[in-house]
Amino acid sequence: MSRFWSPIVSTLKPYVPGEQPKIANLVKLNTNESPYGPSPKALAAIAEAAGDALRLYPDPTSMALREAIAARHGLSAGEVFVGNGSDEVLAHAFMGLLKHEKPLLYPDISYSFYPVYCGLYGIEAVEIPLDDAFRIRVADYDRPSGAVILPNPNAPTGIALPLAEIEALLAQDRERLVVVDEAYVDFGAESAVSLVPAHDNLLVVQTFSKSRGLAGLRVGFAIGQRPLIEGLERVKDSFNSYPLDRLAIAGATAAYRDEAWFDDKRRTIMASRERVAEGLAALGFEVLPSSANFVFARHGQRAGADLAAALRARGVLVRHFAKPRIGDFLRISIGTDAECDRLLAELSAILEG
Amino acid sequence: MSRFWSPIVSTLKPYVPGEQPKIANLVKLNTNESPYGPSPKALAAIAEAAGDALRLYPDPTSMALREAIAARHGLSAGEVFVGNGSDEVLAHAFMGLLKHEKPLLYPDISYSFYPVYCGLYGIEAVEIPLDDAFRIRVADYDRPSGAVILPNPNAPTGIALPLAEIEALLAQDRERLVVVDEAYVDFGAESAVSLVPAHDNLLVVQTFSKSRGLAGLRVGFAIGQRPLIEGLERVKDSFNSYPLDRLAIAGATAAYRDEAWFDDKRRTIMASRERVAEGLAALGFEVLPSSANFVFARHGQRAGADLAAALRARGVLVRHFAKPRIGDFLRISIGTDAECDRLLAELSAILEG
Repeated sequence: MSRFWSPIVSTLKPYVPGEQPKIANLVKLNTNESPYGPSPKALAAIAEAAGDALRLYPDPTSMALREAIAARHGLSAGEVFVGNGSDEVLAHAFMGLLKHEKPLLYPDISYSFYPVYCGLYGIEAVEIPLDDAFRIRVADYDRPSGAVILPNPNAPTGIALPLAEIEALLAQDRERLVVVDEAYVDFGAESAVSLVPAHDNLLVVQTFSKSRGLAGLRVGFAIGQRPLIEGLERVKDSFNSYPLDRLAIAGATAAYRDEAWFDDKRRTIMASRERVAEGLAALGFEVLPSSANFVFARHGQRAGADLAAALRARGVLVRHFAKPRIGDFLRISIGTDAECDRLLAELSAILEG
Repeated sequence: MSRFWSPIVSTLKPYVPGEQPKIANLVKLNTNESPYGPSPKALAAIAEAAGDALRLYPDPTSMALREAIAARHGLSAGEVFVGNGSDEVLAHAFMGLLKHEKPLLYPDISYSFYPVYCGLYGIEAVEIPLDDAFRIRVADYDRPSGAVILPNPNAPTGIALPLAEIEALLAQDRERLVVVDEAYVDFGAESAVSLVPAHDNLLVVQTFSKSRGLAGLRVGFAIGQRPLIEGLERVKDSFNSYPLDRLAIAGATAAYRDEAWFDDKRRTIMASRERVAEGLAALGFEVLPSSANFVFARHGQRAGADLAAALRARGVLVRHFAKPRIGDFLRISIGTDAECDRLLAELSAILEG
C-alpha cells in the first residue's frame, strides 16, 4: 500500500501467469507455448527489420500486419485490430466494448484474466457455470446482460463449441456483443471469423502466441465489423499510439503469410495431443475432449496439486489451478513427441511410486 | 458511434501522433526520433534473441532490463518499472498513481497525451499556464492538488527546469506525487533520478525512443521508490502480463549498457542543435532555449502553419501544433548535420520567396 496509489490500485487482484523458470533441461508444458520455433520466414523478416530503421517509430496503425490478416479472410484492414498480445487486445475490449449497465457474462471456469479486467475497469460480471461435463451450455447465456465473452475452445478445459452454437449465442440478442476469444482455435475448433460479415455483434480475438509459435513476440488481433474496430482504436489511441514495435509488425506479418508452416505445425501438435490423451487415459486419467494445444485431465486417485508438484520435482512443468471444481485437474501443454513421452513416463513412475 | 461501445468510448479524444509517411527522400524532423540508428550492440542482442526461443513467452518481469537500468543508478530492480514505450508507462501511472480526489496539475503547454489519459481514466486536471517566456514556474504548482506531472525538459518548448526547481516542487507537499517525464533529459537537462532515494513522492519516467535511437522498439521505464513501482506493477499485471517482447528486452538491455554509444550520439545531437538554433536565429526566428533533441521556434513575419506546409511541399517534415499561444511555432527535431543544413536551406528559400 502507498498513499500515492490511486484508490483502485489496492482493490486489484492481478493475473498470475504461468511461471517462466530459468532451469536447464526443464520440460515446460505449463503455458501452452508451441514446442516449435516460429516460421523461418518470420525470423528472416525480423532480421531484415532489425537495423538502423529501429530509430524510427513504427507505423502506429500496423497496416502491413492488418492487411495480411484481412486478406486471408476476404476482409479489409479496417475490420482488423492488432495489439501487444491478445491480452492487450482483450484489455481494450473490456474497457471499450464490454462495460455496460447490464452485467457481462462469462463461464465460471475460463481464462482467469477475465475477472482481473473486470476489476481493473469496474465491470459488473456474472459467471455462468459450466455443466457437469465442463461444457459451456449456450442456453444458459440467454438472460438479460450487457455482453458475453467466452473462449472457444474454452480454457483450461480445451472443449470447443461448434459454430452453430456460436450462431445461436449471437442470435439470442442482436443488441448484445459477443466476444469469442479464439486463442486456441487453430488446433481443431471452428473459427467464428466467417460469421463476422453477417453479425455486427461479434468480435473474434486471436493470438500469434500458440499456433504461430510466437509467444515471445507479443502479437494478438481482433476481427469484427468496422464500428467495433473503431471503438478499439479509440481506446488504443488514448493509451499508446504504437503498441507493436517494428520487429513485431515485420515478424507477425511474415508469420501470418506462411500458411504452409502454420498448417504443418498445428497438425503435428494435434497428432501429438491425441497420443498424449491416449497415454493419459491408459494411466487412469479422465481427459476432457480437447480442441486446443493442451489437455485438461484428472486422475481419480491422486490430487492434482500433488501430481503437479511430483512432476515439477522430476523436471516437468504443468499448470495446476487451485480453484473450485478443477482443483484435481492438470493442464498439460502439448510438447514435442519426446517431451510428451517424457511426461507420460514421469507420470507413470509417479503413479507406480 | 456504435451501440456496442462502452459509454466512455464516444467521449474519448484520442492522441494524434506525428505522421509517419512513406515518402522517399523525406527529411523527417517531426517526431523527435534520433537521426542515428541504435547501438550495434543492441542490434547484435536482437539478432541473438531472434530465434527459436521466440516460441516462449518473455520474462513477465523483464528482470534483465530492469537490472541493467537499476545498476547504472545504484538502485535495485524493484525500483524500476518498464513498459511498451514511455506512453504505456505513463498510461499506467495516470491510472495507478495520478487519479485522486484533488485535481492533477500539469502545464497548459506540454505533452498533448496528458489530457488524453485524463479523459481515458476520468481524472480531473487543472492546466497551469506557462509564463510569458514559455517557462514552467514551480511556484504556480503550490496549491491544493492530488498530483503533478510535467516533462523536463518540457515538450514542445524544450525548456528545462534545473534540479533545484524540481526539489522545490517536491518539497511543496510531501503528500503529493510528482511525476517528472524525462523523455528528453539526455540532451542537456539534469535528471531527477538522483533525488529518488530521498523522495518517496517522486517518479521519473524515461524512454529509449530518443537518446537510445530505439523509437521502433517501444521501450520506456520509470524509476521510483518501491511502493510506487509496486503500484505500477499491480496495474500492469491487471492489464497485460508481458508488455515487452523478447526482442525488446534483449535490445534495450544491450542498448542501456552501451554508454559509449549513448554519450557519443547525444553529444553529437546537442552540437547539431546549437548549429540549428544559430541558423534559425540568423533567419529571423525566435528560438526557445532547448535542452532537448528538438528546437521550438517562431518567425515574426510568417505563420507557423504556412511555414510547416511550405517545408512539407519541399520534402521537409516538421511538427506544428494548431493550439493557442504556440500556433506560430514549429517544433523541429534535430537530424544529421546534412538534414539540418537542408532544413535551413529550405527555410531560407521559403523566407526569400
